[in-house]
Amino acid sequence: MDRPRVGELSPPDRLLMGPGPSDVHPRVLRSMSTPLVGHLDPAFVDIMDDVQDLLRYVFRTDNQWTIPVSGTGSASMEAAVANLTEPGDTVLVPGNGYFGERMAAMVERAGGEAVFVDAPWGEPLDPAAVEDAFDRHQPDIFGFVHAETSTGTLQPNVPELTSIAHEHDALVIADTVTSLGGVELRVDEWGIDAAYSANQKCLSSPPGASPLTLNDRAMDKVLARESPVRSWYLDLSLLQEYWGDERAYHHTAPITNVYALREALRLVAEEGIETRWARHRRVAGALKAGVEAMGLELDPDDDWWLPSLNAVRLPAGVDDGTVIDALLEEYGIEIAGGLGNLSGDILRIGCMGHSARDENALALVSALGNTLEALDADVDADAGASAARRSLKR
Amino acid sequence: MDRPRVGELSPPDRLLMGPGPSDVHPRVLRSMSTPLVGHLDPAFVDIMDDVQDLLRYVFRTDNQWTIPVSGTGSASMEAAVANLTEPGDTVLVPGNGYFGERMAAMVERAGGEAVFVDAPWGEPLDPAAVEDAFDRHQPDIFGFVHAETSTGTLQPNVPELTSIAHEHDALVIADTVTSLGGVELRVDEWGIDAAYSANQKCLSSPPGASPLTLNDRAMDKVLARESPVRSWYLDLSLLQEYWGDERAYHHTAPITNVYALREALRLVAEEGIETRWARHRRVAGALKAGVEAMGLELDPDDDWWLPSLNAVRLPAGVDDGTVIDALLEEYGIEIAGGLGNLSGDILRIGCMGHSARDENALALVSALGNTLEALDADVDADAGASAARRSLKR
Repeated sequence: MDRPRVGELSPPDRLLMGPGPSDVHPRVLRSMSTPLVGHLDPAFVDIMDDVQDLLRYVFRTDNQWTIPVSGTGSASMEAAVANLTEPGDTVLVPGNGYFGERMAAMVERAGGEAVFVDAPWGEPLDPAAVEDAFDRHQPDIFGFVHAETSTGTLQPNVPELTSIAHEHDALVIADTVTSLGGVELRVDEWGIDAAYSANQKCLSSPPGASPLTLNDRAMDKVLARESPVRSWYLDLSLLQEYWGDERAYHHTAPITNVYALREALRLVAEEGIETRWARHRRVAGALKAGVEAMGLELDPDDDWWLPSLNAVRLPAGVDDGTVIDALLEEYGIEIAGGLGNLSGDILRIGCMGHSARDENALALVSALGNTLEALDADVDADAGASAARRSLKR
Repeated sequence: MDRPRVGELSPPDRLLMGPGPSDVHPRVLRSMSTPLVGHLDPAFVDIMDDVQDLLRYVFRTDNQWTIPVSGTGSASMEAAVANLTEPGDTVLVPGNGYFGERMAAMVERAGGEAVFVDAPWGEPLDPAAVEDAFDRHQPDIFGFVHAETSTGTLQPNVPELTSIAHEHDALVIADTVTSLGGVELRVDEWGIDAAYSANQKCLSSPPGASPLTLNDRAMDKVLARESPVRSWYLDLSLLQEYWGDERAYHHTAPITNVYALREALRLVAEEGIETRWARHRRVAGALKAGVEAMGLELDPDDDWWLPSLNAVRLPAGVDDGTVIDALLEEYGIEIAGGLGNLSGDILRIGCMGHSARDENALALVSALGNTLEALDADVDADAGASAARRSLKR
């Protein structure tokens, strides 16, 4: 218990092209050095209002209950799942990726029973399989992952899935962790009852205050619960007193993270949400063109390609850890390997928020080509780099 | 869902002398504008190690399981309570303040039964009452609040309380939210099995990553649980894989908040923990001398006076909201009113971390005197200001 000798904070400079966090815009970083006001200060209440308005804009929702949860993405995920799941509820979750499994784990912690929609990892849910699972299990809640970070799979046909759920009188929870602010998402128009997200992905704000939205139908269920939510910290029936009209103390909000989220969301509003979706497609399109021209395969089909997270099949005989370490050490670029079932088979390359810029896609494709060539993999780095470059020509 | 028009972030300048957050040191604010590295980056792993070492230093512990929880203070509180409480457990909690009641609420969410030590609000627990409660209830866990933020009461005799608990084979959880880094606290020497805190109080780091420490005896209970913890996000048996040797992904850590906590803890280590405790007593001593000389009463006795949070009895006929608003609007100084049973009866004046400085104590005493005089309260503002000034003369 001597005084530890700890030097100045000086983390290395990185280009963050993994599954998150993404690079943070200088304006957002600067906002975080703003001195604090109290969490009940009238000025902070105004800031809370701004953040709620801005979150509604990016979620495309009019939901009153649109707030940042005081934790990282898994906290808003558990807030959604734990508040809506009562002990004894059956919750249908997706079987096509790592985060569906996490949803199931949270359902069980909440006292519910998780049942799965059959679907292979790396493919979206088939509406017929969802319909089938509804007939078999009669779930109370249906959760799906809009953008599966573990496989780079986008879930198309969302309105079709929510219709099935609503015909069966179930609530719909959407995991929009890797889509919010980067990929087309329309909470109200698509009939999503509750959606949660993280802010270190396509919003490019440091993790710590995580978006959540619930419509009245979902919130009515929370407020009518027979048993209290199993987490006091995440209990929305208490939190609503702070984020609602009363502004009553529940817990201390992460003030600086709220400042940062506000600034990150202002940047989204300045760019325009649809322009931002288009930018992600354009930059990630160059990345995709580059890796494919190099001779690598993108795991998901074009129909469910997820611009914000690209799952690239590893060439035969190449170890993922070697590639990841080389990119980090030699180029300062962070990417990641596969999770769960796809561990060791894929590289996960993010293209999110402030990281989704032309220069970053070009740097990534070139550095990846160099690295794989140095490992004697069967790739054509030049072809990759020029395809990425051509894709970005205006 | 039009683009919200939200202007530049420009909260007013405040002097934070309430129950938290406290003012953040410029070096800590600056650390928050540091660009991010990933939460699994080898450089971040080193930063995690630094934070753990520094937390052990301020907690005065050698506990391996000393980590920042990814949320604000109530998250580390619920992490302690929810991990240690199994359904069916009886947990003895203090009846002398608001945060004992919160502890009871969390015990119940975890499936345990909360029983109370009888004690009036504003007084510490009497060891005899604790002994008596043990005999009556045979609890599995004993929780106490070392520094009760709602009443400004310090719990003396901690080793005596922990001995009683250990003789009855119970684990001890300490709420050190308003003591860690500001008031003498010795986790190992005093026999505390688990302690949680917040970082926006005497550590003066923005809320969002909250200290928690468990000794092996407590962690053994967590790892031997028969039923899983009711929150996935706060489950220490999963979190230990990230903060332990494996460094396996559980959830994304709040990277920037960890940067900030590291810098705030470096400042503590530079000052020296015992010097810091002494500074809090000295500055808060001036504050206390000032308000008492003015003619106001401090709620707690000298024996359990809590330097970091001063509960000042309101003069007859003065409305707390009027005083609080005037200080905020006319002087930019934040203080707070009472919570729960003491609502409307007291003012809560913090003296924490970077806010605990001579000039702040002088400003607070003078501004409070002016405000009360303007409200025709029976106080002697001059006597208050000069007593505070004299108290700080070296």
